[in-house]
Amino acid sequence: MESGNLTSWRAGRYHSGEIRMETSEETIAKEFALTIQLDGEEFATIVCSPSHLRELVYGFLASEGIIREAGQVASLELDEDRGYAYARLAGSPSMSRDKVAKRVIGSCCGKSRQFYFHNDMLTARTIMSRAQTEADTCLRLMERLQAISADFHLTGGVHNAALAEGEDLLAVMTDIGRHNALDKLFGYRLLRGESASDKTIVFSGRLSSEVVLKAAKMGCGLLLSKSAPTDLALRLAEDLGITCAGFIRGSKMTVYTHPERIVMNRSLP
Amino acid sequence: MESGNLTSWRAGRYHSGEIRMETSEETIAKEFALTIQLDGEEFATIVCSPSHLRELVYGFLASEGIIREAGQVASLELDEDRGYAYARLAGSPSMSRDKVAKRVIGSCCGKSRQFYFHNDMLTARTIMSRAQTEADTCLRLMERLQAISADFHLTGGVHNAALAEGEDLLAVMTDIGRHNALDKLFGYRLLRGESASDKTIVFSGRLSSEVVLKAAKMGCGLLLSKSAPTDLALRLAEDLGITCAGFIRGSKMTVYTHPERIVMNRSLP
Repeated sequence: MESGNLTSWRAGRYHSGEIRMETSEETIAKEFALTIQLDGEEFATIVCSPSHLRELVYGFLASEGIIREAGQVASLELDEDRGYAYARLAGSPSMSRDKVAKRVIGSCCGKSRQFYFHNDMLTARTIMSRAQTEADTCLRLMERLQAISADFHLTGGVHNAALAEGEDLLAVMTDIGRHNALDKLFGYRLLRGESASDKTIVFSGRLSSEVVLKAAKMGCGLLLSKSAPTDLALRLAEDLGITCAGFIRGSKMTVYTHPERIVMNRSLP
Repeated sequence: MESGNLTSWRAGRYHSGEIRMETSEETIAKEFALTIQLDGEEFATIVCSPSHLRELVYGFLASEGIIREAGQVASLELDEDRGYAYARLAGSPSMSRDKVAKRVIGSCCGKSRQFYFHNDMLTARTIMSRAQTEADTCLRLMERLQAISADFHLTGGVHNAALAEGEDLLAVMTDIGRHNALDKLFGYRLLRGESASDKTIVFSGRLSSEVVLKAAKMGCGLLLSKSAPTDLALRLAEDLGITCAGFIRGSKMTVYTHPERIVMNRSLP
């Protein structure tokens, strides 16, 4: 367990009843992109935690069928600052590289760096919406998602994503893949021709960079999660104008970025 | 929420103290592979839950930057039995397809089907190990992984995978990506030149098909998880001779496949 996998982020903590936002340093997971060059050619970019990168490269090459034992790698140089691993094979690979899906990603959060920089920059939009949502509404939306997530409770094996307007969940999508659940929401919105700019995404899964990018592509400025964010996700959310709240459980919520979209409850007791 | 995302599996339940294996029908999540053909060409295979496939295809194409609105898809035919979606675009795509990483996967569990059938069949081995482990050892190994998973408790955002021998954790790897944590273990084993055939993988994450395939590639026959399996993972584990136990929490464990490697405790009170 290395502390190198962690960093901190200044966030606001909301506790229902206390009705105030405190700021604290939250510990969050780092999200690191490592591009593997194999015999001088770009092979894959893996989005990962930055520990044990040497083991990761060997294991990834073995998982992909490129090597069967460590001796088949003649040399491996890591450039951690630039996020590159330069591997040279001792002979020809155990498997024709054509048979290996190119730029395959070994992570839940994975996309090739090329994808990050090319495609995402063209499709992810900065969110300008000034719509505001009450803090207690955020808590209630997560409660509702949990309540109707029968699949999740039955199997423990799926994620849920919902599109909400005000206090209503308009659509709930379920998938074993976090990203698929969001893509299903994106498809739902497109098929209805509805804008998501005044709506909220309520999500059971972790906020990785790709989740934030999907929210930006959908044009949605408020992203609520039951789970934790990564540092790259939060840096992107900051840039893209997306409000990220995580660890929404019971009466608690942590607000990491653009807190201006979450307002205290207007009618206090 | 659709029941179409779920199926059942006959499993054994172990409760510490009761020292007996009961069999029950467990509800588990389905894992479905959908290949998208775009204008007659294979574009991607998404490993997903089988609900809302239409929304998934639209959302995936939009996430990848191929379309910006639903009208850009002229037709979409789904062949659910064969796992194919045939999409035709109304005009040229919003983005050059060369800029899109090919066979990108939208799921945590994703690999292209080509990958499944080609590469995995060549590198995944059927496990013949006859090594047995006591049921209580399985519970204790998971307890130990939890205890040393400081990162997980701090951030809620990482997965842990350990290689164990007897009651000892030889190595613990942490990553935001489930598959990376396992690849780091694979790399650890390769760099040490150690066999994993008499060892145990202890894992915090869900058992998807790819996790089972990685265990098979590492040559490891006992896979312990804190979380749930998918149906495809269990079918593969059955074929590949891998013992899968899930939901290992406290004194409980569910054994899904090849229970012969898990034995009752030899020294009873």
